Amino acid sequence: MSNKVPVGVSNRHLHLSTKDIETLFGKGYELKPLKDLSQPGQYAAEEVVTVEGSKGQIEKVRVLGPARQQTQVEVSKTDSFKLGIKPPVRDSGDIADSSSVVLKGPKGQVQLNEGAIIAQRHIHMHTSDAQKLGLKDKELVSVKTEGKRSVTFNNVLIRVKDSFALEFHIDTDEANCAELKNGEQVEVHK
Amino acid sequence: MSNKVPVGVSNRHLHLSTKDIETLFGKGYELKPLKDLSQPGQYAAEEVVTVEGSKGQIEKVRVLGPARQQTQVEVSKTDSFKLGIKPPVRDSGDIADSSSVVLKGPKGQVQLNEGAIIAQRHIHMHTSDAQKLGLKDKELVSVKTEGKRSVTFNNVLIRVKDSFALEFHIDTDEANCAELKNGEQVEVHK
Repeated sequence: MSNKVPVGVSNRHLHLSTKDIETLFGKGYELKPLKDLSQPGQYAAEEVVTVEGSKGQIEKVRVLGPARQQTQVEVSKTDSFKLGIKPPVRDSGDIADSSSVVLKGPKGQVQLNEGAIIAQRHIHMHTSDAQKLGLKDKELVSVKTEGKRSVTFNNVLIRVKDSFALEFHIDTDEANCAELKNGEQVEVHK
Repeated sequence: MSNKVPVGVSNRHLHLSTKDIETLFGKGYELKPLKDLSQPGQYAAEEVVTVEGSKGQIEKVRVLGPARQQTQVEVSKTDSFKLGIKPPVRDSGDIADSSSVVLKGPKGQVQLNEGAIIAQRHIHMHTSDAQKLGLKDKELVSVKTEGKRSVTFNNVLIRVKDSFALEFHIDTDEANCAELKNGEQVEVHK
């Protein structure tokens, strides 16, 4: 049985609460979907914001939709040096005591006391994929890549849901380290 | 027996030929040592240059001394996107058909037709370290790191010389991917 999964590289991005969307873009504002993402129902929005830390800022950080309960900013370690923040490596949604940043939009700005993280790499999969691969939700696996810069990523979290499509999510530091591109196939090992 | 080696993170840098030093900094110019590196005889120089590719440039790239036979620019994959070049992953010194960049110094500029590479990760070691670790020159090993972002770097080249100090050399993408810092200890596996 094949143990291959496709790679999805996440560039820095953010998810916004409805309240923060209104502060940044104006009262009653709704995100404009630009492009569907591989995870069903998720999209890259037309909107971008500036993310500012104590040392610097990064412009045009893409907003992903739809709106979430909590605003969350996902950056790479490389980005964190530029911003001057020390975000923890966390699963999505786990933002307690994570880094503080300021978000600047066309209509206002948001002082985020916590919410900036480095996303822990993970594999999204549908229940049927999990059955085929013999894996279950929250299990940790390794992922091996090929080539001159072959690496084995340890501590890769398995996330199973009927709304998920099979994909190994990594950030740009992880992609650049292993010379991986979107859609490349990598091997899962228990 | 311990199989631990310390990490050395290389930021983007370049080595210059005597001819290119003169073109960039002036006739008869000699590099001014700023700081000794961990490898005996090698130093970071006071001099910096601008490296330019087809898409962008990076300023203040550090020159390492002493002068070499051939000019060589070592960048990360992240840097390569900013510059708009596609450098191959190579061992130091192996620059045939590598990427073209322009170097700009205070007194002139050098059109480098080849010379920009992404350095292949490697472990420098003294002959006595190689004996202790049971390794030989040009052997390939794996290196495992600890922590939430634990990775195993495969295809790590062993370089043995009596002028080398024990150190695992990686670039900033590899360091940021695995959350590694200078001087941290990692495990070598055959």
